[in-house]
Amino acid sequence: MTAVPPLPTTARAAVLHAAEDLRIEELPLRPLGADDVLIAVDAVGVCGSDMHYFASGRNGGNVLRQPTALGHEASGTVVATGPSATVTPGTRVAVEPAVGCGTCAICRSGRYNLCPTGTCFGSPPVHGTLATHLVAPSRAVHPLPDAVPLELGALIEPLAVAVWAVRRAEVAFGDRVLITGAGPIGILCCQVARAAGAVEVVVTDINDARLARARELGATRTANTARDVLELAGFDRLLECSAHPAALWQALHALRPGGRATVVGQAAPTVDGLPLAHLQRHEIDLVCAFRYAHAFPTALALAADGSVDLASVLTGRFPLEHATEALRAPTADPTHLKVVVRPGDTS
Amino acid sequence: MTAVPPLPTTARAAVLHAAEDLRIEELPLRPLGADDVLIAVDAVGVCGSDMHYFASGRNGGNVLRQPTALGHEASGTVVATGPSATVTPGTRVAVEPAVGCGTCAICRSGRYNLCPTGTCFGSPPVHGTLATHLVAPSRAVHPLPDAVPLELGALIEPLAVAVWAVRRAEVAFGDRVLITGAGPIGILCCQVARAAGAVEVVVTDINDARLARARELGATRTANTARDVLELAGFDRLLECSAHPAALWQALHALRPGGRATVVGQAAPTVDGLPLAHLQRHEIDLVCAFRYAHAFPTALALAADGSVDLASVLTGRFPLEHATEALRAPTADPTHLKVVVRPGDTS
Amino acid sequence: MTAVPPLPTTARAAVLHAAEDLRIEELPLRPLGADDVLIAVDAVGVCGSDMHYFASGRNGGNVLRQPTALGHEASGTVVATGPSATVTPGTRVAVEPAVGCGTCAICRSGRYNLCPTGTCFGSPPVHGTLATHLVAPSRAVHPLPDAVPLELGALIEPLAVAVWAVRRAEVAFGDRVLITGAGPIGILCCQVARAAGAVEVVVTDINDARLARARELGATRTANTARDVLELAGFDRLLECSAHPAALWQALHALRPGGRATVVGQAAPTVDGLPLAHLQRHEIDLVCAFRYAHAFPTALALAADGSVDLASVLTGRFPLEHATEALRAPTADPTHLKVVVRPGDTS
Amino acid sequence: MTAVPPLPTTARAAVLHAAEDLRIEELPLRPLGADDVLIAVDAVGVCGSDMHYFASGRNGGNVLRQPTALGHEASGTVVATGPSATVTPGTRVAVEPAVGCGTCAICRSGRYNLCPTGTCFGSPPVHGTLATHLVAPSRAVHPLPDAVPLELGALIEPLAVAVWAVRRAEVAFGDRVLITGAGPIGILCCQVARAAGAVEVVVTDINDARLARARELGATRTANTARDVLELAGFDRLLECSAHPAALWQALHALRPGGRATVVGQAAPTVDGLPLAHLQRHEIDLVCAFRYAHAFPTALALAADGSVDLASVLTGRFPLEHATEALRAPTADPTHLKVVVRPGDTS
Repeated sequence: MTAVPPLPTTARAAVLHAAEDLRIEELPLRPLGADDVLIAVDAVGVCGSDMHYFASGRNGGNVLRQPTALGHEASGTVVATGPSATVTPGTRVAVEPAVGCGTCAICRSGRYNLCPTGTCFGSPPVHGTLATHLVAPSRAVHPLPDAVPLELGALIEPLAVAVWAVRRAEVAFGDRVLITGAGPIGILCCQVARAAGAVEVVVTDINDARLARARELGATRTANTARDVLELAGFDRLLECSAHPAALWQALHALRPGGRATVVGQAAPTVDGLPLAHLQRHEIDLVCAFRYAHAFPTALALAADGSVDLASVLTGRFPLEHATEALRAPTADPTHLKVVVRPGDTS
Repeated sequence: MTAVPPLPTTARAAVLHAAEDLRIEELPLRPLGADDVLIAVDAVGVCGSDMHYFASGRNGGNVLRQPTALGHEASGTVVATGPSATVTPGTRVAVEPAVGCGTCAICRSGRYNLCPTGTCFGSPPVHGTLATHLVAPSRAVHPLPDAVPLELGALIEPLAVAVWAVRRAEVAFGDRVLITGAGPIGILCCQVARAAGAVEVVVTDINDARLARARELGATRTANTARDVLELAGFDRLLECSAHPAALWQALHALRPGGRATVVGQAAPTVDGLPLAHLQRHEIDLVCAFRYAHAFPTALALAADGSVDLASVLTGRFPLEHATEALRAPTADPTHLKVVVRPGDTS
Repeated sequence: MTAVPPLPTTARAAVLHAAEDLRIEELPLRPLGADDVLIAVDAVGVCGSDMHYFASGRNGGNVLRQPTALGHEASGTVVATGPSATVTPGTRVAVEPAVGCGTCAICRSGRYNLCPTGTCFGSPPVHGTLATHLVAPSRAVHPLPDAVPLELGALIEPLAVAVWAVRRAEVAFGDRVLITGAGPIGILCCQVARAAGAVEVVVTDINDARLARARELGATRTANTARDVLELAGFDRLLECSAHPAALWQALHALRPGGRATVVGQAAPTVDGLPLAHLQRHEIDLVCAFRYAHAFPTALALAADGSVDLASVLTGRFPLEHATEALRAPTADPTHLKVVVRPGDTS
Repeated sequence: MTAVPPLPTTARAAVLHAAEDLRIEELPLRPLGADDVLIAVDAVGVCGSDMHYFASGRNGGNVLRQPTALGHEASGTVVATGPSATVTPGTRVAVEPAVGCGTCAICRSGRYNLCPTGTCFGSPPVHGTLATHLVAPSRAVHPLPDAVPLELGALIEPLAVAVWAVRRAEVAFGDRVLITGAGPIGILCCQVARAAGAVEVVVTDINDARLARARELGATRTANTARDVLELAGFDRLLECSAHPAALWQALHALRPGGRATVVGQAAPTVDGLPLAHLQRHEIDLVCAFRYAHAFPTALALAADGSVDLASVLTGRFPLEHATEALRAPTADPTHLKVVVRPGDTS
């Protein structure tokens, strides 16, 4: 430990100034607190919310009001730690970007994803992970098992979304599961539902290429809802990953009495056409999934033992300087599942 | 048991022929099966669904297509039994009007209220309980405890609705509960929620007389949503008993993160304006209650030990010949909670 | 349907007259009721309880008091049906030997395995399935998927035991599971737990050959408790399949705080040495699994899609005339997992 | 806030030096941390564990190895706060003596009562609440509602034990509950179970005076197990509060199939005679309650609205100087329910 080089005090980051205006610039790093770690970022996944901020300067109710580094899916290597941090330098980690305040009644009850005062990397005005370095509290980093390559560590966050969604959906082994939407979250939910013992997982979308990929990655059957006449019925669980209310309303009718529908895709502020009498007559529950709580350990275990194939979900990589291109890639080519930016390649 | 008089083969009943056309006439009784009981009906509660059939010839998706006796809330005395029936003549009973087929997978799983082929007394074309006599299977009758007067036995069915609603709502002792709508079901839900240990039960309505009654019957606080500026927040559970979507959407915002909303009032086929992003951000669950399963024993126990005050909920009684008047009474006077028809008084 | 041969009125069966006294003889078949089916039995698995009856004339609290055909694990082909039966002749089926009365409160609540008056094939004095033919109610037969060979259909019953055990254990995907005992039920629980998403399943036994088989069939690790110094800790769930209290007491200490232990192996009437203070300090739940409820559909699905490898569990087959040999085989050779008797081969 | 008197740096406390050797002496107070509060203690309840330490120098597995102030049930008034404390001076509070580390995986999952590194006031070597002053973290103090007198605030802790026990027991409204043991915890469990909607609560003990008190405080029936021939059966839930295994084994037979038994009374390290086959045949769950998590708010609400009558449970009070007498009182007179020591009276 002799002659340690000085720690960086700034990071090169992809900072959004306004819609369509993303700039690579240096941002100061906050000083390392007692429980903090400094991470050299290796890879950062691009999420739909990043794309919303980039395209329109807002995501749902949150509006960009000051320049903010985007990104909340990240892997990297710990390069320095505060004195009471619980990981050691050199550790390869996945970053959990929203861990709650840790002290309010909701955090203490275990549902820290619902913390009223919690923040999240990359949700303006909090700077995100699209940067060469990152400071985070110990509890926000999860060591990667040897079997998970560092680059794929950036996909642990979306996998945790799927893990939490499948938990909220209360998928039990033996269940028949319907998933609407074959984007990256839909595909990951498909893999997790299979890992959780679902004996049938049907995935729907309007893009045949995505559906082909779903079949490769565990779907027992797929249907193109733009074309196929559906005969779907009797599902125990629905995971709505398309973010289209019409898909949700239609799919609710495919659930058995007493079934459970879980909204995973980002919900619009208000939606019309809820078939409430149908839900009531058959006591179909409608619940939502928001981020995740306690889901990273399971995500890591599923990635490590091969239950979930992350490599097949990663369909593109870009250097930090090309972050704008990365943010446009999934829209330009809908067969993309997950693309990553590699700040680590630029250092 | 010498010189037993012959059993009746017909019953005088209040038969709906078309909207606003209710006639008192004789209906044949079906023969007593091995597991059946014949009941001399004492009292029949008037429910909102009866009023819908009477006013418009339909209720939700079910349309009157042939003359049908209305009514599904009933008490009476067993006067004869089939050889394998499990109750004895002379037993005072409440009638559970929808018990499922008993053999399908859903019934066998315990949720017989969701039986796909189940019928319900008084849901056309199945004749209802507004009649002097009734034939029902053993499992549809529940002996009344001594402490429950026969007439009030007709209110066990709506009380079972409230019991099931509070169960579906997963009200736990110590909870803070919001109830929208101070009609008979809202009032009964209020009493049951208190019996279940809710430490705060706030009831809202737009009618001050109903709210005053709610306060008398257990509400810890009430609010007139047509007039009061509400500062309601942090509720664990919501029971929506007003059947107005606007009340539901507004009340959802009064739930804490992780709260649970239960739709008890009859739902419209489709409703607009669901605040889905709010539900997602705070993982507020939206579920519905339909009838009841396994709820009559608890309803009977709560009525017997005084936890629920049924007598105060009964606000009017009419002979069978005045059934039309009974069906109009709650609309004419919104301070009515529950009115009963007394076929037994006419025999 | 012309010239239908007459139905058999008797079956050749393996009838236990006393400990070690099993005789092949003709038994009358009960007449086919309206909802019944007549099954030509193909294969019957030998269970530990059969072996107990054979060895000692009793199993747990149930004592053989009159000659009784043994066996409760069976597959076969429907050859005739009553008029209201829900399966058709020619259907290949697995038999669920204990389905409850169907009408008591416990059955109606969904837990028919706990029915106070229910019977089970092969539990004296009720004749069992070790016979060429069998009459059973419709709800006791489950059609076999095409992918499940008829002979392996006899293993659906023990697989249903494992499915129910894993459900009672509340194994969730991502869990770490400890299984004590690598007999047929332990091995099946191992496979089901893996299918349910357990990321680690450690199996213990005192027989290395059994442990080797456990590793082949899904165990991520094994330990010989007669020899290895164990460093087992932090398990979420325990499935006790060895029927040895000492194994249970020891394994309880390997659970994490808030863990859950499920006794699957047949329990002794009373056991000494329960470490109750340890259970209390760490709120470790102790529950048991008895038979199964609603588990056959999941067992069939897991067998059909290959999640569970039944063929590897079947280690021996005997004609009906050699049923005595079959009942002795697993004791004689502890590496046997499941042996079947094939009444179908004798017809 | 001018001329504030200096804060005390020591407290007079009841310090146990060895079995039967309790001394009143000054102990240094730890410095007030940023999130801490200083409490002037008003009342401290005497618990069975205090009595065990006093009588034998140990309680369960925990042995007194250095002088330690006893006590963990306390109320008082906040007299000073650290800069980031969440309560203000002058607040009347109940003290939650064991709140976990707050950062481990178990605490973060919500079950902080099972924290592996957590401490508890009054569990040697951690000094307890039998003192004039106490320093505690913010999250360990709960403001008393106006309706709860300060002295009775010391009984909130045992009430929280009962709240947690009833939650662990999963008592639902409408349940029939059996409670073995009519000591203070049994009596409080009886009141809480009633508040939670149990329609029948039967309490057993061997002391008629205690049973009479149980009937006054909500038991619907009582039985003296030393004398009465019991005909108890069909209970949904059992709360074992007697700490006698024999009572537990016997009571397990009074549960219905699928019932649930919860051990609340302090468990012995190992117990013999567990009727495991009975538990298995009827799938009766055996769980334990340890302290409480998130139970104080409900305890405070039930005390405030009169659902639980704490005043009737308080049967004796002693000044701090007579703490030894207080520790002997419940043994000397078994009709005592809860006695308190009043350090506040000595200041």
